[in-house]
Amino acid sequence: MSEQKYRADQIKTEVLQKLRSLGRRIVSDLERGRFPYLELPARTTTNIVYDAKLRQYVLGGKKVERTTKNIRHLRPFAQLLWIGTFAKKLLENSKTSTLRDTYYVAIGEGIDFEDQSESDEMIMQLESILDSPREDFHIFPEERASIYGDLIIEYTVPGFRGKRVDLSAHPDGFAIGPALTTAEFVRCNAEVVFVIEKGAVFSRFVEEGADKKYKAILIHTAGQSPRNCRKLIRRLHDELNLPIYVFTDADPYGVHIASVLIHGSALSAHIKEINVPDAIWAGVWPSDIRRYKLPSMKLTDRDIKRIQELEVDPRYQTDPWKREIKEFWKVKRKAELEAFSRYGLDFIVKEFLPERLAELQKR
Amino acid sequence: MSEQKYRADQIKTEVLQKLRSLGRRIVSDLERGRFPYLELPARTTTNIVYDAKLRQYVLGGKKVERTTKNIRHLRPFAQLLWIGTFAKKLLENSKTSTLRDTYYVAIGEGIDFEDQSESDEMIMQLESILDSPREDFHIFPEERASIYGDLIIEYTVPGFRGKRVDLSAHPDGFAIGPALTTAEFVRCNAEVVFVIEKGAVFSRFVEEGADKKYKAILIHTAGQSPRNCRKLIRRLHDELNLPIYVFTDADPYGVHIASVLIHGSALSAHIKEINVPDAIWAGVWPSDIRRYKLPSMKLTDRDIKRIQELEVDPRYQTDPWKREIKEFWKVKRKAELEAFSRYGLDFIVKEFLPERLAELQKR
Repeated sequence: MSEQKYRADQIKTEVLQKLRSLGRRIVSDLERGRFPYLELPARTTTNIVYDAKLRQYVLGGKKVERTTKNIRHLRPFAQLLWIGTFAKKLLENSKTSTLRDTYYVAIGEGIDFEDQSESDEMIMQLESILDSPREDFHIFPEERASIYGDLIIEYTVPGFRGKRVDLSAHPDGFAIGPALTTAEFVRCNAEVVFVIEKGAVFSRFVEEGADKKYKAILIHTAGQSPRNCRKLIRRLHDELNLPIYVFTDADPYGVHIASVLIHGSALSAHIKEINVPDAIWAGVWPSDIRRYKLPSMKLTDRDIKRIQELEVDPRYQTDPWKREIKEFWKVKRKAELEAFSRYGLDFIVKEFLPERLAELQKR
Repeated sequence: MSEQKYRADQIKTEVLQKLRSLGRRIVSDLERGRFPYLELPARTTTNIVYDAKLRQYVLGGKKVERTTKNIRHLRPFAQLLWIGTFAKKLLENSKTSTLRDTYYVAIGEGIDFEDQSESDEMIMQLESILDSPREDFHIFPEERASIYGDLIIEYTVPGFRGKRVDLSAHPDGFAIGPALTTAEFVRCNAEVVFVIEKGAVFSRFVEEGADKKYKAILIHTAGQSPRNCRKLIRRLHDELNLPIYVFTDADPYGVHIASVLIHGSALSAHIKEINVPDAIWAGVWPSDIRRYKLPSMKLTDRDIKRIQELEVDPRYQTDPWKREIKEFWKVKRKAELEAFSRYGLDFIVKEFLPERLAELQKR
């Protein structure tokens, strides 16, 4: 059986090739007596632009050069190369790491990072040079989302390679770590994905049989979706052609969670394909507060400040975002997904969900 | 097959009996023209005592009476009865809820709770009257821990009743929600449980094969362990006779996470058996900072204040707690579990773990 049967193996081969060619260029420069240099996309705020066509943040054309000719560039140049070497070892040995672990390994090897934020920055620079998210060189988030639904996956990680698991076997959900992130999708009977911010609402959806009624895969992001979960959602959309609906609280934080999932974040503008521009924010919307007479809370000063920031953000200039942000000013209140429980625990699945889906599908 | 074959069914029957007898007493009082009253354990700080023999916080003998004779007691009396009715419905309909959902359902039914903290308090009063944790009347935490290891469980929840799952099938871990919490343990080949605060370290343990090397079940608490995860750990100890080792950061927060898991919390003093007095805190200890020359950070002012609080807490008056808290003052620093990665990603499992376990087993 070919080693390349798995998508994860192809990615590994590609990233290793990019790392090797990066290394070869530097060695070749040194051998010819030239100062090695790197060119990387500028990740300064002025170079982060919202691409209305791609419907996500991307980097503009501005580049920065990092050259060993300049003594002040030497330190970050060496740090970046160390990160590259570490990434290569991770891939070759089929190990994984996190941002934090990587920092500690660097410390142990005598690499001069002031603190973790400096090594995190170098990892992001490596992402932008390789044009690969760090998960592709095995640096994973610490946080865990989880998934449940009618999908069979096949692992590619050592020890589990070739083994399969049915994600409908455990109704509390399967944690999404390195093994699930790198798995292949083998068979899927689901027709839609519901992405849910809250654990309680995830449980509610399971309990009321939303997965069966809608043939839905349920994903619990536990707040802001970890990057590898966003990528997994993207794969569910791209590879299985599943529509994605996102459910968050009707507060500025919930709106932001939905938006990052859909349009990406400025911080990840150098990385494509970990957001899902075709995903649909399905509520709970600020306008649902009045429409469903939901129990709600007054906006705090912090909420108000955050909403003002959202108003000028290019991601929120079209509906439903624009309309719903305006609504915040009208109601001056926020509400949680659980607020539907005022009509009974089953209301959110039995009443709200079909109404909202019908409405969104009409458009 | 008898309905009572499952532990979860026995608990359900018991709690329903307690609820019914509570209701009957009140109805009977009313029928005889007497003012119904309730007696509940006082949960005031002076009545929360550390029981050195049980090695956990418990409530003292002080009781408070809540009588409908007193007009000021009427409101909380009625609130408490509503919570009891809601709990009964949850059990009878095999539904689950959370603290927050319960609050919203109450709002919807016109129950006069000022805010969620008031309904939370009533749920805790019901726990203390019934002497049952709220999970036993199906009010579950929103947070999710996860579990991985050589243990086969059988579900008792509707839709999955009688189905089994092998918890060694998914190396990223199975989320611990209502279904896993109420499951039966069917077959276990594990010999020990490692409870881990951090997702990154959980992944490290999986990747380095700690589960196979030590025949270990791995549990990821994602910070402070949710109550249902603590209860599950207790069951792994009581029902399967497995020793429990707890791994946290060497900072006051990590120490507290370990201690609550082992000795319980003041807030849960009215509930027994969701902590595990026989569990062992295995590190990373403050003294490991010097011993292993771990990369460490300066204690913040908040850390220092927290350590001072721990010093006077009765749970920390014996070793290793007392010794290790003293150590904080000596090193004036804190360290994370991931800090072992300075010696390579595999160090924590290949070197630290066997050393620490040997040391703890010698005692």
